Amino acid sequence: MSASVSESNFEWLSRGTSEIFPNQPNSEDADENLIQRILKSDRHLRIKLGIDPTGTDIHLGHSIPFRKLRAFQDAGHTAVVIIGDFTAQIGDPTGKSEVRRQLTTEEVKQNAQTYLEQLRPILDFDTPDRLEIRYNSEWLGKLNLVQIQELLATMTVGQMLAKEGFAERYSQEKPIFLHEFLYPLMQGYDSVAVEADVELGGTDQKFNIAVGRDLQRHFGKRTQFGLLLPILLGTDGTQKMSKSLNNYVGLREDALSMYSKLEKTPDNLLKDYFELLTNLDLNQLPDNPRECQKLLAIEVVSQFHGLEAAKDAQKTAEQIVLQGNTTIGDSVPEYSLSQVEFPAKLFYILGASGLCQSSGEGRRQIQGGAVRLEGDRISDVNLTFNAAEELTGKVLQVGKKKFIRLID
Amino acid sequence: MSASVSESNFEWLSRGTSEIFPNQPNSEDADENLIQRILKSDRHLRIKLGIDPTGTDIHLGHSIPFRKLRAFQDAGHTAVVIIGDFTAQIGDPTGKSEVRRQLTTEEVKQNAQTYLEQLRPILDFDTPDRLEIRYNSEWLGKLNLVQIQELLATMTVGQMLAKEGFAERYSQEKPIFLHEFLYPLMQGYDSVAVEADVELGGTDQKFNIAVGRDLQRHFGKRTQFGLLLPILLGTDGTQKMSKSLNNYVGLREDALSMYSKLEKTPDNLLKDYFELLTNLDLNQLPDNPRECQKLLAIEVVSQFHGLEAAKDAQKTAEQIVLQGNTTIGDSVPEYSLSQVEFPAKLFYILGASGLCQSSGEGRRQIQGGAVRLEGDRISDVNLTFNAAEELTGKVLQVGKKKFIRLID
Repeated sequence: MSASVSESNFEWLSRGTSEIFPNQPNSEDADENLIQRILKSDRHLRIKLGIDPTGTDIHLGHSIPFRKLRAFQDAGHTAVVIIGDFTAQIGDPTGKSEVRRQLTTEEVKQNAQTYLEQLRPILDFDTPDRLEIRYNSEWLGKLNLVQIQELLATMTVGQMLAKEGFAERYSQEKPIFLHEFLYPLMQGYDSVAVEADVELGGTDQKFNIAVGRDLQRHFGKRTQFGLLLPILLGTDGTQKMSKSLNNYVGLREDALSMYSKLEKTPDNLLKDYFELLTNLDLNQLPDNPRECQKLLAIEVVSQFHGLEAAKDAQKTAEQIVLQGNTTIGDSVPEYSLSQVEFPAKLFYILGASGLCQSSGEGRRQIQGGAVRLEGDRISDVNLTFNAAEELTGKVLQVGKKKFIRLID
Repeated sequence: MSASVSESNFEWLSRGTSEIFPNQPNSEDADENLIQRILKSDRHLRIKLGIDPTGTDIHLGHSIPFRKLRAFQDAGHTAVVIIGDFTAQIGDPTGKSEVRRQLTTEEVKQNAQTYLEQLRPILDFDTPDRLEIRYNSEWLGKLNLVQIQELLATMTVGQMLAKEGFAERYSQEKPIFLHEFLYPLMQGYDSVAVEADVELGGTDQKFNIAVGRDLQRHFGKRTQFGLLLPILLGTDGTQKMSKSLNNYVGLREDALSMYSKLEKTPDNLLKDYFELLTNLDLNQLPDNPRECQKLLAIEVVSQFHGLEAAKDAQKTAEQIVLQGNTTIGDSVPEYSLSQVEFPAKLFYILGASGLCQSSGEGRRQIQGGAVRLEGDRISDVNLTFNAAEELTGKVLQVGKKKFIRLID
């Protein structure tokens, strides 16, 4: 039958997907499943993904839903990225959380741009009609008390308290402030406003996405599907990837740093990482786990820095290993730039860091073409840096065997 | 001491008052009590009382807080009557309650006028600066999501669920819709907006009035006192006065009807009724319970219809009793106007109702000056009514012994 033929074309949809709901056509809740909606629809579907612009440092864990969003784009659909600027500007009015301080409109805009810039390698920004970027203040800022009341009236206290997180806090008698009940409704109302067909999110977003369905139904709109993606484990192989646990690979890291971390991916994570972070055929992976690690690292680094830089990083990492006096990755020797007075010439830093025996030797090594910064050969003997930030996190190299990573 | 001298002047404040809170100066919650606030303040206090303009039929139970409001007016303070038009216009968005259907602006305005008109005998409408009538849509209609969120953030779910009514429903697993949490906050925000010093309400209003205090504190305003008044029992002496229980005395009832009901006030209610519904000295009441009933009835009827009408009603009621073929009060014979085709002449109704033997006799009785409507002598033989509403509830009388009440 044609349906099964068609469905075989939807591997991209199920790859790395934890759950799509509702998934039973003709159930009480749905008259079609997502594939049927895609096949029957005479237009591009609208695929919603919300981001929180309070932070700007994003890592591979954040990239997962964006990779799925790209898969939808490649299938001809429209990615609708929602910047939660309204929520971010509210801050936490209880003042209990320092993290959620109130941001200015300008900060939110800036954060959102920084956030999206890092996703440029993943998302299709250029094909017409494939990407819509919306700020939710556009519609949330216009709501008045009558409308907010209508939103609140769609749910009961019992339903809200059943939500993961609330349930635990309530049973532990930890205070839940009333405004916290607004957040799922605001996220849900975003789906009404942008007329989402699908909302992407981590498995922890099921409740909020379901609220979006309820609100769409309440306002007489077609209801969205939820597509849930797993939470990515960090490079330690045990906990959720997170900056604070230092088990992450940031999207802004240089090629060598990314490569070095990914090359050590624990065996138990390899299959998940391939499935979630690459488009490689999972049946065609090398048998040798070491080869798998390298392939994964090359694949992922290529997405952000290009294949050549990935291969260079691989080469560099191997040289470091060969050199024997140091190991790869995180343990590249570090030199703190706090000891340097800026502006500073590069040859001075070469001497001060001990990479060369003196500034004079540093100068000669640059002239001899032996100095690289982030893999790029430096030829300007007088190259000067105005601030530590210009160098922080970068790898400085003399010849083929001597490396340091410059840190704060 | 002067304080005790001063406090002896505040009998009007404590008369019929269930509770004033906070009442302990120097407690955590207050740096003064209400009498101190009154004595220290260099301006009139602002005394808030909110009314719900979804209904217009009000009875003596509703008059209690207005009588207290009048006492404040007489002491020089400003009554701030808040018409809850915003809430009324919201209706019940769950659609579960037919009673709370959404009202139009015009209906709300009309209802509020009808409501207040009935209070004209109680409240001082005329002395300058003694009465402010405010519609809460003035401030609630302007709130946006950021501000509503700030209101919600002042309270926790636990605090709200502790409220009488919510607590029971939650424990019985009856649904509580989220928007219901808004109502106490809206009422509380009214206190912020009008800068209330005191809010009056029934004993069931303690929670809402306390929310008003919290919100005033949150917004950096001086906090209000709550003055709680008892819920008036109905003329049956057992249950809360209520139209649906038919144990009420409506403020729009004619003098005879009011008199007849009040004259039967059960002994156990007499003291409360005197305290709450009159200004009589409770130590000077007659010993004879029958005399007490009559005095109460005369006193209350006088407030709404004047002393002369009260005395006429008393006389009429006594005649009805003497006449023997009927009893007083509720059991004045009734005649349903549904049997009459309008427009209709009064002499026709006299005949049709059996009050006269024919229309012709009706005409003659009018000419002879023996016909009264609501106690007013009718001299226009051709007096015509266009609709039953003009007559509903009124007492039609021929001579001194024959009465009927005209009903729907």
